[in-house]
Amino acid sequence: MLPNDTIIALATAGGAGAIAVIRLSGQDAIAIADKQFRSVKGKELSAQKSHTIHLGHIVDGPKVLDEVLVSIFKNPHSYTGEDVIEISCHGSPYIQRELIQLFLRKGCRMANPGEFTLRAFLNGKLDLSQAEAVADLIASDNEASHQIAIQQMRGGFSGEIEKLRQELLDFASLIELELDFSEEDVEFADRSKFEELLQRIELVLKRLIDSFAVGNVIKNGIPVAIVGAPNVGKSTLLNALLNEERAIVSDIAGTTRDTIEDEIVINGIGFRFIDTAGIRDTEDVVESIGIKKTFEKITQAQLVIYLFDTSNFAENSDTIVVEIEKIKNKFPKKPLLILANKIDLADQSSIENKLHYDKLLFISAKQNQGVDLLKEKLLEYVNTGALRNNETVVTNSRHYDALLKALEEIQKVQHGLRSGISGDLLAIDIREALYHFGEITGQVTNDELLGNIFANFCIGK
Amino acid sequence: MLPNDTIIALATAGGAGAIAVIRLSGQDAIAIADKQFRSVKGKELSAQKSHTIHLGHIVDGPKVLDEVLVSIFKNPHSYTGEDVIEISCHGSPYIQRELIQLFLRKGCRMANPGEFTLRAFLNGKLDLSQAEAVADLIASDNEASHQIAIQQMRGGFSGEIEKLRQELLDFASLIELELDFSEEDVEFADRSKFEELLQRIELVLKRLIDSFAVGNVIKNGIPVAIVGAPNVGKSTLLNALLNEERAIVSDIAGTTRDTIEDEIVINGIGFRFIDTAGIRDTEDVVESIGIKKTFEKITQAQLVIYLFDTSNFAENSDTIVVEIEKIKNKFPKKPLLILANKIDLADQSSIENKLHYDKLLFISAKQNQGVDLLKEKLLEYVNTGALRNNETVVTNSRHYDALLKALEEIQKVQHGLRSGISGDLLAIDIREALYHFGEITGQVTNDELLGNIFANFCIGK
Repeated sequence: MLPNDTIIALATAGGAGAIAVIRLSGQDAIAIADKQFRSVKGKELSAQKSHTIHLGHIVDGPKVLDEVLVSIFKNPHSYTGEDVIEISCHGSPYIQRELIQLFLRKGCRMANPGEFTLRAFLNGKLDLSQAEAVADLIASDNEASHQIAIQQMRGGFSGEIEKLRQELLDFASLIELELDFSEEDVEFADRSKFEELLQRIELVLKRLIDSFAVGNVIKNGIPVAIVGAPNVGKSTLLNALLNEERAIVSDIAGTTRDTIEDEIVINGIGFRFIDTAGIRDTEDVVESIGIKKTFEKITQAQLVIYLFDTSNFAENSDTIVVEIEKIKNKFPKKPLLILANKIDLADQSSIENKLHYDKLLFISAKQNQGVDLLKEKLLEYVNTGALRNNETVVTNSRHYDALLKALEEIQKVQHGLRSGISGDLLAIDIREALYHFGEITGQVTNDELLGNIFANFCIGK
Repeated sequence: MLPNDTIIALATAGGAGAIAVIRLSGQDAIAIADKQFRSVKGKELSAQKSHTIHLGHIVDGPKVLDEVLVSIFKNPHSYTGEDVIEISCHGSPYIQRELIQLFLRKGCRMANPGEFTLRAFLNGKLDLSQAEAVADLIASDNEASHQIAIQQMRGGFSGEIEKLRQELLDFASLIELELDFSEEDVEFADRSKFEELLQRIELVLKRLIDSFAVGNVIKNGIPVAIVGAPNVGKSTLLNALLNEERAIVSDIAGTTRDTIEDEIVINGIGFRFIDTAGIRDTEDVVESIGIKKTFEKITQAQLVIYLFDTSNFAENSDTIVVEIEKIKNKFPKKPLLILANKIDLADQSSIENKLHYDKLLFISAKQNQGVDLLKEKLLEYVNTGALRNNETVVTNSRHYDALLKALEEIQKVQHGLRSGISGDLLAIDIREALYHFGEITGQVTNDELLGNIFANFCIGK
């Protein structure tokens, strides 16, 4: 059942800006707005065309609340598929609040998180994976995650799934038709063509399932553990990596991100740097707890950076070798980068004589030397081939689960076909596979699932 | 000289929202947008009507950056009076940044603070006092300051000034015309009507100048010093006053103000509560420094609240009387409210027998008893008569200065007229008065003044 009330929310970010946009959607959106809007040209909103903008005032009785621009979108030509009004008001939090409160008193209801997008889904403007991509798009903070989200929102992923689902559905219909004629022992569905289709579906599903590892990295960033004694320059290194990004950001006042913390985006890929306490050998109980924690953090990381200070290398070289060997022995498969910092103060060759590692890199975080090379090395560890080839990448764990289940069913069907099981049993497994395809795009859904998905949206979307 | 480049800025608040609005203004705004916009309907923006909205994608070469709605405003029918494009994009900070960077590469320039409004002023869409009201409107955080700003933005204040200026200008012309015929000794300007006009102007100026005290209070809040020993319930009292407001705010998720601190808005008037260390009598040097600071804070306040705890009144009654008398003696003209807190624990009549003050109020901050009465008492101290009668209130100190100077000149003219000085001297003083009127509305201006005014705006407005 489609909702029939009119919802309202602030659509732009909270806080003060030059303007703010308040969005109303529902069958009474235009009528409710009309009662509080005085157009400077005197014409009612209901008499205006869709996709037009009107200057006027929002009034509450004799009181003028604000001078605004009102945009009209008539159903079905709107984001939600319902009648939509967007009010572009002055951006003070006070005005935003007053206008929303006014419309709540006049018959609107405060929108739930993601309710505008939920309505767009219910009205068939988006399928479910496209709706989910809207939330991903808003949350995206780097090029890679943005690119995947926009591709998914434009239907790239669901298009691929939908095509396979349709072909499978055609075969399912034929096989079910055979059941009606079971006594006559006919085969409407060409078994060899069906096997060929199942193989194709299996390949696509496996590729999509594999892409989830990359997708996860892109969505959540790559965890990198930094190991090193307290004053070897860990924060200077992070600042050096950050600097370039920060400079770009601060070029555009008003678009500065709140906190960058230790997530650094390099060429569109996010890296999450995890600071550790180092692994100095010790008898001290407190210290050894620190070392245990360092090892835990390395376990979580996909990549380890060992950082040391070249300015006092002579005194510490033995310790450094011991520490590096400890990491290599404990985590033999984990990629390790060894960074010799403060290179401006050091004798490079004497260090190279002592440390025979091919992953040894000389940098000066302070002088910004070698930082670009370090960025290249970091990117080498990321498999972004799929992304570069513009292939579909799965980032959503709900989709991942559905794909795994669909694959399982497809393999059951393949097995059944080869062992010649009866058509009615085959049909059951095909229906199961179709069910999981439908879960992704939203042909199969329920209130609880929709509730879970849209609860993660922000209000106003 | 009017600017001819195209400026860009984020118009909505920074951070993530469902949508964000990026604004372009200038003679190339439509052409620049057209090159990066692919309408779903295939039509170019330049071929579209003003005040229409178009769905499509912002592209950078083959790369799709976002699905957006583009609004077109053709000059002179826009906020700035120039061609304006508003791009409503998905509200991720990443997308906002990418889109702005794209348009910066394609020929836009980052807007300076307030530059959109400056252009609106230069193009005659707003006068200067209206432009200033736009910044006040965005900064307004309570009903009173909002109401004044919107009245000023709609031209209430400048209309009043402009009317007087026009009448004065007419007289000035006549008097200057007389100078051309000085040898014939004619009087084009009716001296008695002129005197009547000057009196009228003087009255209006005095009223506007007087309104600045109220305007200042409304704009900046009323400072209230709270005097009382550390554990008499100061913070509970502030919380009780805040509670109601907080409840209203939290009704509307997504519109919550960040911090309310100690500014509390009651019936649309802001009160800034200043915590003091109390004034306990002591020989201790550190304590006496505290008392000195308390007195300084009382000096800054327009209103003093003395708060004491009724639960241990018997032991402290003498100290309380001494402290109240100290405040009354040192600040005989400052309004003082005496609050007996924790009334649920106390014997009210014994306290009244000891303290004979008509401003004594019994409350329980914790039980929320008497808090409404306290609010009423606080509002009694605010002269908001002018506001209620919808009169013009001056809140801007630049306007206040110009009004004072204009009044001075008007009084010179009045004096000159009475002492019968010559027309040419009279004309000089009238021109001076006209100059100061023109400063308010912006007929008289210079780059430095405009720079100062618009530097206080946010970017994007």
